[in-house]
Amino acid sequence: MLERTYEGQLCSVARTLEWVGERWSLLIVRDAFLGLSRFDELQRSLGVAPNILAARLDRLTEAGIMEKRRYSDRPERFDYTLTTKGRDLYPVIAALRQWGDRYVSPVPPRLVTHRADGGRVRVRVMCEECESELDRSDIEALRNPALEQAGTAS
Amino acid sequence: MLERTYEGQLCSVARTLEWVGERWSLLIVRDAFLGLSRFDELQRSLGVAPNILAARLDRLTEAGIMEKRRYSDRPERFDYTLTTKGRDLYPVIAALRQWGDRYVSPVPPRLVTHRADGGRVRVRVMCEECESELDRSDIEALRNPALEQAGTAS
Repeated sequence: MLERTYEGQLCSVARTLEWVGERWSLLIVRDAFLGLSRFDELQRSLGVAPNILAARLDRLTEAGIMEKRRYSDRPERFDYTLTTKGRDLYPVIAALRQWGDRYVSPVPPRLVTHRADGGRVRVRVMCEECESELDRSDIEALRNPALEQAGTAS
Repeated sequence: MLERTYEGQLCSVARTLEWVGERWSLLIVRDAFLGLSRFDELQRSLGVAPNILAARLDRLTEAGIMEKRRYSDRPERFDYTLTTKGRDLYPVIAALRQWGDRYVSPVPPRLVTHRADGGRVRVRVMCEECESELDRSDIEALRNPALEQAGTAS
């Protein structure tokens, strides 16, 4: 766990990264969105050492992001699926993919489309009031005054 | 760098995480969006060891995500700002914050709003064709057939 003594560690981005800020964790979540659920499938996809994969899956389960389920008794085998909390990470994965398709993949390795009409999928930062798409410069990120009152800053 | 021999490493998510998949890197990018640019400001916000901060800033600069600029000659001092490529990571940071505000912060530490009208900011996954907001289950992520043709899978 991070120390919470620094201003920069109090934010929701930092707290989220305490749970998923390790490359393998986000790749496991990505694979879960692609339909992989069994330990051996994940291991094959990721090429990660089994002990590391097991540790990351335990942590994701502990976080309530994934759910572990026994699907075979003999031999004992488990699979892992995303909970609602885990599925709510989809915008994070989609935003990483969008940036990667633009900047680091010469050819996008996956075509991500709306099943119903084949439309391309895009992640947008929107205003809930005026419904317009926002650029970072349109946005204010002010410290929440309720934070000091609630005493959670300590 | 990751080995590229595994299917799961070819994707844009994995490639993006090669550059920003380290917790400090994303926290530096977050701080840059909040207006911090000087080495000492970043260090104070993050509470990270100077050598680690320096290494992460070098890597972000190498990736073209940040730009290093000397702002003082004696003593020699640098600051770091986001390039366009770096600013295009905003949806990633916004999506992490949104998830964190929902699931891990008892009180959202920052209120993120549209400067013009005070509307709340939300990250949405949208279809470019029908303009509707999509859920993961509405989305297909198929392997790009052009990938094999382009030979980038090898």
